Amino acid sequence: VTEPTKPVIVLVRPQLGQNIGKAARAMLNFGLTELRLVSPRDGWPNPEAGPAASGADIVLERAQVFATVEEAVADCSQIFASTVRRRDLVMPILGPEAMADRIVATAARSAILFGPERSGLETEEVALASAIVTVPINPEFASLNLAQAVILLAYEWSRRSELAQPTAKEVEPAAPHAELEGFIAQLDEELVAKGYFHPPSRTRATRNTIRTIFTKAGWSSREVKAVRGIIRALVTPPRNRNET
Amino acid sequence: VTEPTKPVIVLVRPQLGQNIGKAARAMLNFGLTELRLVSPRDGWPNPEAGPAASGADIVLERAQVFATVEEAVADCSQIFASTVRRRDLVMPILGPEAMADRIVATAARSAILFGPERSGLETEEVALASAIVTVPINPEFASLNLAQAVILLAYEWSRRSELAQPTAKEVEPAAPHAELEGFIAQLDEELVAKGYFHPPSRTRATRNTIRTIFTKAGWSSREVKAVRGIIRALVTPPRNRNET
Repeated sequence: VTEPTKPVIVLVRPQLGQNIGKAARAMLNFGLTELRLVSPRDGWPNPEAGPAASGADIVLERAQVFATVEEAVADCSQIFASTVRRRDLVMPILGPEAMADRIVATAARSAILFGPERSGLETEEVALASAIVTVPINPEFASLNLAQAVILLAYEWSRRSELAQPTAKEVEPAAPHAELEGFIAQLDEELVAKGYFHPPSRTRATRNTIRTIFTKAGWSSREVKAVRGIIRALVTPPRNRNET
Repeated sequence: VTEPTKPVIVLVRPQLGQNIGKAARAMLNFGLTELRLVSPRDGWPNPEAGPAASGADIVLERAQVFATVEEAVADCSQIFASTVRRRDLVMPILGPEAMADRIVATAARSAILFGPERSGLETEEVALASAIVTVPINPEFASLNLAQAVILLAYEWSRRSELAQPTAKEVEPAAPHAELEGFIAQLDEELVAKGYFHPPSRTRATRNTIRTIFTKAGWSSREVKAVRGIIRALVTPPRNRNET
């Protein structure tokens, strides 16, 4: 029996150690063990996390700390951004069930991003994801805290994991996120050289749009390489094939 | 549109006011408003409940207090006892989904019983129920607290209730195929100009690869336009922005 694909839980700039502990407890209740922290406000380890984890110490002990979201998801091919708020980004918005379906349908590594308690994820962080995941909630009282959001998504994943079958991998998995970032950086550099980002006031929004477009594509490593070759060809003077 | 059948949440001998508040918050997130308390340890109202409810005051204000479980569920036709522990009672044991199915399938009033934080429900209290409801959980780390159990069951109920679902934001549809063809033709033309297709024996396979890559992306009309703009920028000499 193969282990079903377990998503990595990424807490971005979590504020309270207590909430990190509660998230760890919520995870382990449903069998999730891989926790990553992006610049936790009060550093790491945090003495308040342990008591709140109520025994989920193994999750805290194995937690890894990263400076940026990009680094935290570099080895993940499928990234979900948990948020209840509307965004200017045009991205797929999934419910927990559709997210869980996607996680178990792929052999690739998935990550779920959760923002800081008060402010949530920044637009640039949401743009890193392939989709937004939103728990459908009472529109007149939407007050999910961090650990509650984690437990609901972990629960939904666990419901699929029992059903998880050894899936036929006829489809190439999406490239690890670091490869996609490498491509986006290359494209960005070329576009800067061409004076594409203009006016400056629109640059940030344009960059988010580009990121969303190419993240959405879900390309495999092979496909990302091919597109990088295409970009290179487009910005390079024509080769004279007769000379080769 | 008829209101779906909402279960009553019954907290039996809850110990901490804070947990009553958290349960109220969990309920209201998924549209449940009817809370009943059976002899809360510290009396009622409890000043610690309000802050923990994070604004779900209406649930606390309307909460009713009863001396016994029998009285609390006297008007309910279908009673579920939430517990993770095995009992000597011979009763149906349901998962959250089956419980939610039963709640919405009947017009009668349903109640879900939750025991005290430490000890859980007494055997006699479980025996009042038509079924036990148990959240399937990591057998090596079963550590659901009261509010977590409430939120998971409330969430599961809300999934059955169409009213609880906010209107799914429509993702932009993929562009009509002709637009994608227009883009691929533009890209092809630029690549031909750059001498990209080489050697000739590979040209057909390379063109197929390119078509697959960009078809797979599933871009909308807006996104195809944006990528066309990017291609144009890449093959055009840099603009001097100061001249415009």
